[in-house]
Amino acid sequence: MRLDSVEPRIGAFVHIARDAAIAAAAESDARWCSGQPLSPIDGMPIGIKDIIETEDMPTGQGSPLWAGFETRRDSASVQALRDAGCIILGKTVTTEYAASEPLMPARNPHDPARTAGGSSAGSAAAVGAGILPAALGSQVVGSTLRPASYCGCVGYKPTYGALNRGGSFDHLTQSCVGVLAATPDDAWAVAMAIASRVGGDPGYPGLDGPLTIPPAIAPRRLAFLETAGWPKASEGARAAMAGARKRLAELGITVVSRGDSPAIETFERTIAEAGPVTFQIGDWEWRWPLGSYARRDGLSEPLRRRLASGMAMTAADYRRALRRRQEIRDEYAQAATSFDGFVLLGATGAAPVGLSWTGDPAINVPASLLGTPAISLPLLSDEGMPLGLQIIGRSDQDAALMAIADWVWHHYASDH
Amino acid sequence: MRLDSVEPRIGAFVHIARDAAIAAAAESDARWCSGQPLSPIDGMPIGIKDIIETEDMPTGQGSPLWAGFETRRDSASVQALRDAGCIILGKTVTTEYAASEPLMPARNPHDPARTAGGSSAGSAAAVGAGILPAALGSQVVGSTLRPASYCGCVGYKPTYGALNRGGSFDHLTQSCVGVLAATPDDAWAVAMAIASRVGGDPGYPGLDGPLTIPPAIAPRRLAFLETAGWPKASEGARAAMAGARKRLAELGITVVSRGDSPAIETFERTIAEAGPVTFQIGDWEWRWPLGSYARRDGLSEPLRRRLASGMAMTAADYRRALRRRQEIRDEYAQAATSFDGFVLLGATGAAPVGLSWTGDPAINVPASLLGTPAISLPLLSDEGMPLGLQIIGRSDQDAALMAIADWVWHHYASDH
Repeated sequence: MRLDSVEPRIGAFVHIARDAAIAAAAESDARWCSGQPLSPIDGMPIGIKDIIETEDMPTGQGSPLWAGFETRRDSASVQALRDAGCIILGKTVTTEYAASEPLMPARNPHDPARTAGGSSAGSAAAVGAGILPAALGSQVVGSTLRPASYCGCVGYKPTYGALNRGGSFDHLTQSCVGVLAATPDDAWAVAMAIASRVGGDPGYPGLDGPLTIPPAIAPRRLAFLETAGWPKASEGARAAMAGARKRLAELGITVVSRGDSPAIETFERTIAEAGPVTFQIGDWEWRWPLGSYARRDGLSEPLRRRLASGMAMTAADYRRALRRRQEIRDEYAQAATSFDGFVLLGATGAAPVGLSWTGDPAINVPASLLGTPAISLPLLSDEGMPLGLQIIGRSDQDAALMAIADWVWHHYASDH
Repeated sequence: MRLDSVEPRIGAFVHIARDAAIAAAAESDARWCSGQPLSPIDGMPIGIKDIIETEDMPTGQGSPLWAGFETRRDSASVQALRDAGCIILGKTVTTEYAASEPLMPARNPHDPARTAGGSSAGSAAAVGAGILPAALGSQVVGSTLRPASYCGCVGYKPTYGALNRGGSFDHLTQSCVGVLAATPDDAWAVAMAIASRVGGDPGYPGLDGPLTIPPAIAPRRLAFLETAGWPKASEGARAAMAGARKRLAELGITVVSRGDSPAIETFERTIAEAGPVTFQIGDWEWRWPLGSYARRDGLSEPLRRRLASGMAMTAADYRRALRRRQEIRDEYAQAATSFDGFVLLGATGAAPVGLSWTGDPAINVPASLLGTPAISLPLLSDEGMPLGLQIIGRSDQDAALMAIADWVWHHYASDH
């Protein structure tokens, strides 16, 4: 069992429900044998980021304050996956409250001296290591796309609100459930298993489309985006992106960039604000629950500083940041009409060496701010490590993004 | 102490933090004596509906399944109220999961043989009995306005999203934190103590206005709404409303109704759908967590039926209901430009006799569906019991609603 051989080296899990998983696998086998699977992914083993509630396992939020905390129920996503016949194998490592501090770090499966990224570290590491075909994460800033890029798996961040976050310690306005998976097919099937059973966040239309991945469609015209991440990208990552653009051109896809298009140049200037606007919105939103947690010991210094930063804001500051975000979203929606998608690096480079820093999210935050779907495909490399190729689509058009991502996935290497 | 004399007769509380409250009161006294109160309502004792998390008391959700459950943290609202110096006196009775079943009923303070209403039963009963000046509730259908009307207190349901629901077992898309209070002043001050510290729901602008109630403003023109509740209203309630319209006219306010205005007649036909559309939206949204809770014993039959109804829906049904809701909201926004507010009964009549039914929410659901602010003022009566006069305002214009409600509150009786 790959879990036993690899897990001790990477530490992707905080809890493993081994006996329950074995029992659930046997039940799934019986359903398939009788021709009555509960879903296309009945029997798929899945890992759950440890900010998402599970009835049979504690939810520790990557913090000593919450170690062993029993929530007594499943989150919406876990309820749906169990109803789809999936095997909930265990809870995976997260940074503290899915923010920046890796208090219990996971190691990168491709080099245990490097971080697995954050905050969905354990989910990405377990999938990247081949322990699991899929795992749930979340993303407010760059917490699904970045670890996927670092660990060499697919990372899918749906449209904001597309997957029900109920029953997760996952409160911020840009946050959404993300899927780490071995392939785009698996990522889509897991997401639809959730959406078809418990919908999106209350009040949102929820992810829409077929239960299995829609037919691949060749993109004709993509926009290459630098974002504020490009100046921070490693030499290797830039070279990898140059190679990717060449390869996409060979495949018949037109890739337009800021030098070719005044519209993209204008949008590049705007999207460079993605980080500052995101952090300002998050600072205010962290007033709760950090205000309560700060009364006790056990909150990291970085999060105490984050709280102080939020406490220095006014409600008017927050409203201004929300309005700015909406303006940027409107500008994106306008720009996006001319392209099948936006292509960019999956991270600013290979996973950094060391376990105390989960890496730079600068190139992942645009999709979070925009609320759009985005996917990172493990097609590039840097420093001999995996590196993602990121594609961003349009809000509530996740199926269209998945169709072109799947086409790129199947043609990128095989026609080479 | 009124708590000791009255509480045994009505059963408004499920938990009382007596020692903590005495200690908090002493600290508040010291702050006032040194001229350093934390807020205008420093020292105010407040009750908390038992679906809202409190660090020092369990949160039982009115269900045997959750009895004694310790959430280890304060909700956003409770964190804010503690930071404002308020005394969190206890947890108040709720129906099961703030839905329809009063598994542990509270009694009406004006007649213990009658219901206190639902779902914020204990909060309304405690305030109506004079035990507390204010308490928190919530409203998805009619759970703040209706018990306020029955128990003779002010009920304030803010604009959807205006008060941060974080840390509450309060997931539905129409739900919001509500305030039960002795006066409009107290209701507003409590709401602003929350909004100024933790804002609204993430992504929403949050309640905006002064920390104490804005200056009263006489309304000039109100629209009287029947809604689907009028045919269900008691004779006494209809007579009370006729008296209220006469009194408002004496005060110089024009009250227009469906007979006077084709626009109102059209909107009456639309808003009659408020109940069916609300329940359809809620049925889908209850798929989680009821799907998890139903695996165990201890879920009431009415909620099992509700879950079955949600399971019979498709995501497309839900999206259709959301679109219909938006159309109704748009129609309301249009109609509302001609009036300072909409006036209607606070409930279909006096609190029903008996404890097994919390009463009909037909006349309270419109404001929930619309997402608008609404207030119920205890100015009318039926069967010798309190009855509310409800005023509905415009979304994100809560301060304007409060200004006219306060004017009515001060002039309704005093100039008689």
